[in-house]
Amino acid sequence: MGRVTERRRVIRIRDGAVSTRPDTLVAEEPMEIRLGGKPLAITMRTPGDDFALAAGFLVSEGVLASAAELANIVYCAGATGEGGSNSYNVVDVRLADGVPVPDITLERNVYTTSSCGLCGKASLDAVRTTTRWPLDTSPDTPVLIEPATLSALPDRLRAAQRVFERTGGLHAAALFTTDGELLDIREDVGRHNAVDKIVGRALQQGQLPLSSCVLMVSGRASFELVQKAVMAGIPVLAAVSAPSSLAVDLAVETGLTLVGFLRGTSMNVYAGEHRLALSAAASTD
Amino acid sequence: MGRVTERRRVIRIRDGAVSTRPDTLVAEEPMEIRLGGKPLAITMRTPGDDFALAAGFLVSEGVLASAAELANIVYCAGATGEGGSNSYNVVDVRLADGVPVPDITLERNVYTTSSCGLCGKASLDAVRTTTRWPLDTSPDTPVLIEPATLSALPDRLRAAQRVFERTGGLHAAALFTTDGELLDIREDVGRHNAVDKIVGRALQQGQLPLSSCVLMVSGRASFELVQKAVMAGIPVLAAVSAPSSLAVDLAVETGLTLVGFLRGTSMNVYAGEHRLALSAAASTD
Repeated sequence: MGRVTERRRVIRIRDGAVSTRPDTLVAEEPMEIRLGGKPLAITMRTPGDDFALAAGFLVSEGVLASAAELANIVYCAGATGEGGSNSYNVVDVRLADGVPVPDITLERNVYTTSSCGLCGKASLDAVRTTTRWPLDTSPDTPVLIEPATLSALPDRLRAAQRVFERTGGLHAAALFTTDGELLDIREDVGRHNAVDKIVGRALQQGQLPLSSCVLMVSGRASFELVQKAVMAGIPVLAAVSAPSSLAVDLAVETGLTLVGFLRGTSMNVYAGEHRLALSAAASTD
Repeated sequence: MGRVTERRRVIRIRDGAVSTRPDTLVAEEPMEIRLGGKPLAITMRTPGDDFALAAGFLVSEGVLASAAELANIVYCAGATGEGGSNSYNVVDVRLADGVPVPDITLERNVYTTSSCGLCGKASLDAVRTTTRWPLDTSPDTPVLIEPATLSALPDRLRAAQRVFERTGGLHAAALFTTDGELLDIREDVGRHNAVDKIVGRALQQGQLPLSSCVLMVSGRASFELVQKAVMAGIPVLAAVSAPSSLAVDLAVETGLTLVGFLRGTSMNVYAGEHRLALSAAASTD
């Protein structure tokens, strides 16, 4: 349990030369999240920070929004793995008294569906109406961050990624202040898990909403990652790679500042540019 | 519906210069898969090849294994999006007469869980016992592919990736013959979707099991991707990046040949090396 990496034998081929040696791989194990004893979801994750992962998942799903709403999280004693020992792969979350337990159905297990259909617009509406930490969408929102500060984040993220260096197999998410100071970093085989671990840790420490923070992710910006930022009240999400159409739409709808292709001194701003100090006037070409 | 890319406004910052222009993004939309009218799963996907995606998902889940088991797939007429038009985001799969409909519960919606717990070993066993196209695990299995042929695949994959060039936002999966001939390629915001589309298309064309094919993916090799290859009877999975521990364990358990870090003339072979023609004797250092 809890091992972030594991060793396996590998045959390496380099320009026709063949050798056998041990290799370090990122660990992946299933984890089941239960709510009041009832199964809610299973995720494939890198073991570690499991309680934070469960808490952050429930923030993203709109079940939790503050530490006071969380009673406790435990590993299920009856969840046994090989040899009958605890697998440490099943966690049970208990909500504080009075916190509504969501209706756990298959439909509830995904973030949005409607009785008549399913479309991108309905997904956007579901997040916008569910979040308890709505972002300030006024165009008068004060500038929060300098582009030069954003440009410094990818190197800091990479420098803090300890496991990636050894395995090449991990996504990372990091939380920064708007001055570019690293607050937290998590690595996981699943990019959504890395973000859930960041958000869950913040919830456990009573820090939600993360309204003066920047979330940075090592890969692409999907709808799901924008959703997680919004649900935690994070106003700026920066990604090394491309966003999807629905990620941009959700950022526009909720007022999130969404930055993609953050590389060197270049970046693309897809939404919420009023939070960035842009010195030159924008010109349309 | 069906648009693989969408246009959005973007503010580009390049060395302090700011400009506004249209940008091409990969499209992302939710899709609900129903089985006999009952909701089974929702995935965020790039529209297109939706029926193949649904069919391939059901192959991965062990519901379908041949075209004869599939009656038909339709877009749900009642699934409306903006303006009341069909959202084309809900598909319903009908199985052929006599094909057992799985018990659709929350637990069934994920590939494995057990009454007493959850661990990596249980996940491996679930795939091994569910697949209807078990791989030949005999060490006498004839050599299937040359390392030089594998080395040529990444360039062919990239050359065939049309949407990635424009958006930078897509994962790709490609099916090759063991001679390196490209049979099919699919791109999607979700790497698992790209593989499901490949497998589903093959099922629709009556080509399962894909026992003389190589599946190549543009990113990492997770447990889930190994599972999908195994369930389709594909004997070789090659990835540009790292595998996880559980991906390697599943490959070993099922007899899949798993290649990672396939770059230039280098590669790592994590399992099933008997299918590769390795000229030099393996030496342990």
